[in-house]
This record gives sequence, C-alpha cells and structure tokens, in this order.
Amino acid sequence: LIDENQERLKLQRQFPFPDFASALHFTNQVGEFAEKIGHHPDLYTAWGKVIVVWYTHKIQGVQVGDFLCAAETDRIYSQN
Amino acid sequence: LIDENQERLKLQRQFPFPDFASALHFTNQVGEFAEKIGHHPDLYTAWGKVIVVWYTHKIQGVQVGDFLCAAETDRIYSQN
Repeated sequence: LIDENQERLKLQRQFPFPDFASALHFTNQVGEFAEKIGHHPDLYTAWGKVIVVWYTHKIQGVQVGDFLCAAETDRIYSQN
Repeated sequence: LIDENQERLKLQRQFPFPDFASALHFTNQVGEFAEKIGHHPDLYTAWGKVIVVWYTHKIQGVQVGDFLCAAETDRIYSQN
C-alpha cells in the first residue's frame, strides 16, 4: 500500500479489472469521490487495471486524510 | 511526443487542463475513442493534466495505428 517514490511517501494501490471499460468506470467513481471532497489522487488507467495514488501536494507527503481516501477507494472497489 | 521508456518506444503526450474535472472529462473522451476502435492507451489523470501513452502491447512498440491514435487524441484535445 505504501510506496516510496522519488523520496516522497505516497499511498499507491493497483486494482485489477477484466477489461478497459470497467477500469475506466472505477477511475470515474474515484474521480467523483475526489471532486466531492476536493482532494484529488493520481489515477493511472490502463487495460485491466487502475493504479490510484493518494498524497498531499502541499506537504509533498501523506496525511491522515490520504489514508481515509485510500480506505474509501478500497471500499468503492469492493462494491464493484 | 516520442518517449523512450524501459527501452520500448511509446507515443506519450501531456495535455494541460485548468482543473481535475476537465482532465477527467478528457480521459473519458479518449477512453470512449479507445473503446470504439478496440485499442487502448495508458491514461494518467491528475489534477490539471492528462498524460496519454499509445503503444502496441503485442509488439512492445509503436505501429502506424498508434500514430493515428495519437493524432486523434490531439484532435479531441483541440476541440475542448
């Protein structure tokens, strides 16, 4: 779950999907959540997978809120 | 436009946007085109930008079709 990237801590998880359309649908679900709370992850969408990366630009690291967002992302995935 | 990544040639371009919602909208436009033609790029969506990467898995490189897809991606962006 925790990934060290260019010496900045980020919360990164890869979610598998059976095709491109279902991956893009998940990207939109996470994007809708992000818009609602006003905090935005990086979303890497490809055929059969989405990688979601949560971190806080301002501190170039991870705050409590990022863990809550990652948990919500897991919940959204589990309901698909 | 052309990016060398792990010794495999890919067509990569970054498109700027004023916010997250418009970036995600563009991701969906390119995703819709990808579904229509049955060839799918990697789409990296973040606040204020989308990075689109076209390549052909089967040959682990770039074919003529990828250049056409990259051109169509530019066209979609220019109409936003």
